Amino acid sequence: MNQSRFELTPIGTVRSDLTDPASAPNQGDEGAPDAWLIFEPAVLEALDGIRAGDEVIILTWLDRARRDVLRVHPRGDQSRAQQGVFSTRSPHRPNPIGLHRVEIVSIDGGRVRVRNLEAIDGTPIVDVKPVLSGDVDER
Amino acid sequence: MNQSRFELTPIGTVRSDLTDPASAPNQGDEGAPDAWLIFEPAVLEALDGIRAGDEVIILTWLDRARRDVLRVHPRGDQSRAQQGVFSTRSPHRPNPIGLHRVEIVSIDGGRVRVRNLEAIDGTPIVDVKPVLSGDVDER
Repeated sequence: MNQSRFELTPIGTVRSDLTDPASAPNQGDEGAPDAWLIFEPAVLEALDGIRAGDEVIILTWLDRARRDVLRVHPRGDQSRAQQGVFSTRSPHRPNPIGLHRVEIVSIDGGRVRVRNLEAIDGTPIVDVKPVLSGDVDER
Repeated sequence: MNQSRFELTPIGTVRSDLTDPASAPNQGDEGAPDAWLIFEPAVLEALDGIRAGDEVIILTWLDRARRDVLRVHPRGDQSRAQQGVFSTRSPHRPNPIGLHRVEIVSIDGGRVRVRNLEAIDGTPIVDVKPVLSGDVDER
């Protein structure tokens, strides 16, 4: 394995009523609740330009995931054959980065309310990006 | 700033004819070339289930980006007002993770050919995820 390492710094934290990884929805559009994103004071300036109604991509660090898993049953369904984790959205993967597309509901300084986030309470946030047409267009 | 740190391990490397960050396209659909993803032998099993024709999201570590930038002129255009980096796709941001949606052209063991990747030669790859309907549907 390549010996390089890169260090991620949390820029904020998810505050959610979801507290149990086992009962959290697999995806945001599968009944996930609204949640708060609480940003670190040091990065507030980087939020400038984000507005209520925007669709953004939140990247999180799934700190309760396993990193030594390369194959899983898709969606935890034992009746389905195992697949490589890169062909699934399993949280268990060499670098457990979560990718969540959400809509911004409201912004109050460093407290940002979002719709339908499946990440559990306490999950560290590592990046926020706007959704671009190249992410969503059929090619 | 929160003092936690998380460690990313590269799972592979981009091989591309793009070598100059300054002249690379801003996005894959803006004239970016096809490129190779060369995966580490230790993670090959995690690719199982990915096939030519699939659309996937590649996450990279933009190792030549600056991490101390919170505001930028969008697309480097000095005539546009500065915005917070979280409302742009600037590579310069606290955690310089690149997000690239690409189509798989072919797979040869750990060498994967993809279309239209704007990441430059040598960029470390940190994750691969399938595109899901929740990423692309209008909500």
